Order: sequence, then C-alpha cells, then structure tokens
Amino acid sequence: MYNQFRQDFPVLNSNFHDKQLIYLDNAATSQKPSSVLQAVKEYYQKHNANPYRGLYGLSVKATDAYESARKLTAEFIHADNPSEVIFTRNTTEALNLLAYSYGRSVLKSGDEIVLSISEHHSNIIPWQQVAKEKGAVLKYLYLSDDGRIIEEDLEKKITERTKIVSIAHVSNVLGTIHPIEKIIQKAHSVGAVAVVDTAQGIPHYPVDVQKLDVDFLAFSGHKMLAPMGIGVLYGKEKLLNAMPPFLTGGEMIEIVSEQDATFAPLPHKFEAGTPNVGGAVGLAAAIEYINHIGYETIQNIEEELTDYALQELNKLPEITIYGDKVNCRKRCGVISFNVNGVHPHDTASILDGDGIAVRAGHHCAQPLMKYLNVPATCRISFYFYNTKEEINLFIQSLKKVRRLLGYGN
Amino acid sequence: MYNQFRQDFPVLNSNFHDKQLIYLDNAATSQKPSSVLQAVKEYYQKHNANPYRGLYGLSVKATDAYESARKLTAEFIHADNPSEVIFTRNTTEALNLLAYSYGRSVLKSGDEIVLSISEHHSNIIPWQQVAKEKGAVLKYLYLSDDGRIIEEDLEKKITERTKIVSIAHVSNVLGTIHPIEKIIQKAHSVGAVAVVDTAQGIPHYPVDVQKLDVDFLAFSGHKMLAPMGIGVLYGKEKLLNAMPPFLTGGEMIEIVSEQDATFAPLPHKFEAGTPNVGGAVGLAAAIEYINHIGYETIQNIEEELTDYALQELNKLPEITIYGDKVNCRKRCGVISFNVNGVHPHDTASILDGDGIAVRAGHHCAQPLMKYLNVPATCRISFYFYNTKEEINLFIQSLKKVRRLLGYGN
Repeated sequence: MYNQFRQDFPVLNSNFHDKQLIYLDNAATSQKPSSVLQAVKEYYQKHNANPYRGLYGLSVKATDAYESARKLTAEFIHADNPSEVIFTRNTTEALNLLAYSYGRSVLKSGDEIVLSISEHHSNIIPWQQVAKEKGAVLKYLYLSDDGRIIEEDLEKKITERTKIVSIAHVSNVLGTIHPIEKIIQKAHSVGAVAVVDTAQGIPHYPVDVQKLDVDFLAFSGHKMLAPMGIGVLYGKEKLLNAMPPFLTGGEMIEIVSEQDATFAPLPHKFEAGTPNVGGAVGLAAAIEYINHIGYETIQNIEEELTDYALQELNKLPEITIYGDKVNCRKRCGVISFNVNGVHPHDTASILDGDGIAVRAGHHCAQPLMKYLNVPATCRISFYFYNTKEEINLFIQSLKKVRRLLGYGN
Repeated sequence: MYNQFRQDFPVLNSNFHDKQLIYLDNAATSQKPSSVLQAVKEYYQKHNANPYRGLYGLSVKATDAYESARKLTAEFIHADNPSEVIFTRNTTEALNLLAYSYGRSVLKSGDEIVLSISEHHSNIIPWQQVAKEKGAVLKYLYLSDDGRIIEEDLEKKITERTKIVSIAHVSNVLGTIHPIEKIIQKAHSVGAVAVVDTAQGIPHYPVDVQKLDVDFLAFSGHKMLAPMGIGVLYGKEKLLNAMPPFLTGGEMIEIVSEQDATFAPLPHKFEAGTPNVGGAVGLAAAIEYINHIGYETIQNIEEELTDYALQELNKLPEITIYGDKVNCRKRCGVISFNVNGVHPHDTASILDGDGIAVRAGHHCAQPLMKYLNVPATCRISFYFYNTKEEINLFIQSLKKVRRLLGYGN
C-alpha cells in the first residue's frame, strides 16, 4: 500500500540499527512533516523578535506570526474567538493551569471532581493535588471489559456535589473514544464544568468546542505534527475571565506597583514571559497540514490500519488485547496488548531489534493498569503515515517473541 | 569593522522595509545562528521520539539528546551535577516554579522577600502573589542615580526576617551589573536563600553557580541564541529535593494510585509532561556556539560597542541616559535613554523607518519606571554580532528625531 504522505516525513525514510524505522509510537509523539520544520526555521531566519514588546517592524511581524497561529488554532477547534486560546507548553501544563487557577479558586471542602479510571497521570495528579489542598474528593468512572465508560457509573457518580468533570477524549492506552458529548451534558446538568483532554483525540478527530459546549479543552502540538514545547488550553471566555492568573510576570500585566499588580485581558493574562513563537508557528503549520489532507483521509487510513492490525493480532494465539478487540468504528488506532508469559519490556526490545518502535510500560496510566490488573502493556499506535506493510512486519516480528524466549513455536 | 559572526545569523543579512535590518533589541530576544536552527531540524529529522517512555532505539536517542543537553547546561554553569538543572519554558516559568514550590512551602506570615527596584516583572509578581497568600512582606533595594544598588540599603533591608533575596544579575533596563556575590553572601549571612535571575547576564558573562554559592539561578534560552520555549532553573540539590513538585503529571511520578502519588527523583520531579527536547537540543547548540567563540570575545566586542555608543550618545544634546552614563567596565550593553520632549514610542517609530529595531516602553519594569519618574524609555541592547557601523547609523537616525517632530535642528 503506497502512502503518499510518507515522503513528507524525513525520519520515516531513515534507517535505524541499519533497519528501516517502523514507528508505531504515535500516541507518545508524532513525527514532523518537512513543512512544519521549514516554517519554524523560516520564522527564525526572517521574522524572529520578541512579540508585543517592540514597535519596530520585525517585532510586529513576530506578533503577527504568533497571533495568526492563535487565530488558526481557534478556527481549527471552532472557538468563538481567538482570546479563548491560551498557548501552553503541552497538555500537562494546560491541565495544571486549570487545576491551579480554576480548581484552587472554585473548589471547597466536600466538592467532587470526577475523572475516568483510564486517565493519563496528567489528568489525575493535578486534580489530586488541588483536591488535597481544598478537601475536595476525587471519584473515578470505571470501564467495562471492552474499555468503555459504564453508563450507570456516569449516572451515579456525577451528582450535585460534582464541580469538575475532566475526561480524556481518547484513552492513550485502550484507544477507546469516550462519549464526551454525553459526559459534557451530564456535567452541565448538575452545574459542573466539563474539561476534555483531547491530546489523543485531536490528532485524529475534528473537535468543535461550540458544538460540544465543552468548558475547557487541552491538547499538545507534538502529538499532532507540531514541534515539542507548544500546547493549547481552550476555555470559554467567561470562565477564563473569572479565573485568577496562573504564571505571572512579563507582559501579562496592566499595572505593576511595588506591592501589587493588575492583569491584562485574555489571552495575555495566562501567558507570562516570552512566548514560544517558533512553537506556535510550528503548530500553525501542523494545523495547515492536517487541514490540507483532511480528517476524513486521516480517519480512513487509520480505520483501515486499526481493522487490519486487530484482525492480525486476533489471529495470534498467546496475545491478550486490552479493551476493544474489534474495531466497530468507535476505537482509535491505539492498541494495548501483551504476549502471554512475556514481560512487555522484553517484547518491545525484541521488536526494536527489527527496527519496530512500540511502547511498553504503564503509559502514564497506573490507575488503569491496576484496574486492568497488569503491571504494564505493550502498545502500538498509528498515524496516517503508517502502512499495512509496517503492520505485517510488526506481526512477523511479534511471532518470534515467544520462540526467542524459549516457549517453542 | 568586520564582524565575522554576522554570517552565522541569516536574519541579520536580510532586508526589512527594504532596509538592512539593524537589530538593537537583544535584551528582548537574541537572533539564532544557523548551527542552532540546524541542530533542531536534525533532531526532528533523525532522532525525534518521546524520551524516557520508549525502550526502542529512537526513544533512547531522544533521551540521550535531552540528557546530553542537560549535562552540557550543568557544565556551562558549573553545577555540581546535571540533576540540579531543571528545564523550563523560560526564566518566567523558572521563577514561578520557585515562588509556587519553594515560596509556598517555606514562607510564613511576617517573613520578608527582598528584591531590587530594577527587577523585571517576572521577578516581582510571582513573589507578590505568594507574599499575599502567605502574609509575607516584599522589600525593595533602591538604586543610586547611576543605577547601582545602594550599599546601606542592602545592609538595612536584608535582615533576620528575610527568607528569600531574589535579584537580577543584570538590569534589563539600565544595564547595571548588580553585585550578586555580595548580595548572595549577605542573604546567607541572615539565613536567607539567594535567587539570581541571570536572563540578561548569562548571554554575556560566565556564571559559576558553585563559586557564587547561589541557591537558585534562572535564565532563558531565547536570549542566548537558543530557540524560544526553553529555559533553565538551577537549584542546589538539597533545596530542590526538599521542595514539593510544581507541575504534576506524566513521567514525574513514581507511583500513582486513585487518590495519591509519589514523585520521581530530580530532575524529573519538576518536569511534568512531554519535555521540549527540540528546545533543549537548540539550547545545547547555543551553548556550544558560545563556548566556541568564548565569553572573552563576546565581552571584548560588547565593551567596545557599549563604550562607543555611550560616547556618541553623550555627544548629543537633548538626550537623557538612564543609569550609568559611562562604561567603567561594570555595565552591560543595555542602554536606556530618551530624546527630551519626545515620547519614546515616537523615537522608536522614526528609528524603525530606517530599519533600526530598538525597544520603547516600560520594559516589563514598571516599578523602576516609577522610581526613575519616567513613563517609558527607549532602549538599545547589543550582542556580539552588532557593529560600530550599526551604532553610527543608529546615531544618524536618532539625530533626525527632534527635527522630524518640529523642534528644529
């Protein structure tokens, strides 16, 4: 299967260990197309200056580059206006900003925060910390055997005491697409705010914050073709306006005296210090790339890959797949599995010997590992530049694992 | 005067407004040499993966790239070990990390924090916020007419009540090099910790944290040739170990349960979420560039430029220079001035018309502006790639300012 997009990604055409790289760890970070790398380089070669702070042409250019990236990002997620887009380093920082600023100012003793048991640590620990400080309580939505949030749990756990519901769009371990529309509605029905971590979602599925009516949305550039070091927190203007700043200093102020300060309007209130303009330019180029190929194409390719991989994995005896074992169009191309009797680290090492990059570990989701009753899993995760040939080579290599470890054929 | 380094900086050889760019806003951000841009591009083209999280070769390469950058940074500032180097987005985030983590856990009602009146907002507002929360008191060291900290003020204001002294190495407005060794000693003599913001220092002067015996040090990559989005907090291991984490989530943990988490050792405890590996690789390339040309060369060039600029500015009537008016080898190449009777924004705009990039405003130092009793200033700031020819063109353009605004010749 020829994949026309591979030529845009230099790393996919390079060798590693003298083998062609087969990169199946896209849920950790995506590779970057040349257009993104070129956009960042050009920014630094032609327009680099500190934005906002200068009245001269170059600084105006840098400001334009940064604010154009914000505008494009706002359009990309269908935000009502660009001021609702706050640039952060990554999803983790976005969620910490929320926990520190919104959490600390809103939560009171006995208030409840509802998460799912499949959340990434970044959507757990910030809430644990603020809950401890404020005497709030964390509750978890549990999952069925096929990795889906249990409907009755949702009804039972989101109550009048719930103030914040924070949930991943897509599980980074199981690939489950959570029913975020329903969860957002349920949160709103009890007066809670709904936070969606779409770090694993937006690289593959379009997100419309207005249609979802989501209150806050967080994602990382580096999982969707952009460089590392740039991420996004979207928030409804009214909520962001009512929140205190998180990081302070630099241009996020209006008036600073020796003992006090007043703060700038959105979005600057939440962007202290020199922003990562190069990173924002890279994110804009990544969004343009995605817009150019279109989510439909991305999904078509990934559906096919996921169907095929599940089908091939299901053929192998001695493989346990976690979560949904078949692709019923409700599953992202993230597949966690183990070779029975083999530690996932050993599996990953053997695959690595064939140039195949898969992840093994707890995937920053230890509560889920405990819930699944496994110490760790192997995980493959696709992006639109992967191919069926790569899956074939992965399956071939996987077949060797038990044999190499002395289990016979 | 031929400057061999200019060829390394593409933006300096480009035109803007059909004029050759004369970039005199280096205190806001530096330009980037080709070697830095190339290193970042190569990282993404050859070694990009999420570090730590993968057992496969590419991820090991990414981890190596990130940890090598940390090691080089530690050597660069003479840290005792690499774990004392925490990568942040910029100086602002580093100082916020300190105020949130160290400040909130240590400060009690009535404790005092001592700053100088010339601090950047990023070294003021985080301390204001934590002081308000904890009932601590902010005190300011005032300056003499030539921009130097007043000795008696230092003796008077740093007392047994002082818990934190946080001071810029170099003023971003006046170019004053503050006597950080003396200030650190004084802080230690009363049992306070000493924080140095060397955002404006380390691009021009070597810093040896062990010789200084400084407790915490913060700086930004983007002011010292690196890309935006990467900065450093150095801290003494013992102090960092005793501090609670700031941002949480991702790989900064040991064990996470539904209700609790334990945290990883340094430096990971303070680096939540996917790190900016590309940025760290860029910072490493920047440090290599500085090491290659050497601080002595940088200082020789900048001394000469600063001497010459002050000499030429002093010749002009109707110019007010703030701070030191002569270069007695104790002044960085940052010069704030105003054309009498002209708003600094107008001066900057006229200079911009000649392709000359200077900054006008409060320079994120409003308390200092109030202390100097001016609403704003113009500021020029040099780096080693500037030339006397550029200063001549700047002075020529500056001479037109009052005439163009109707003051006659």
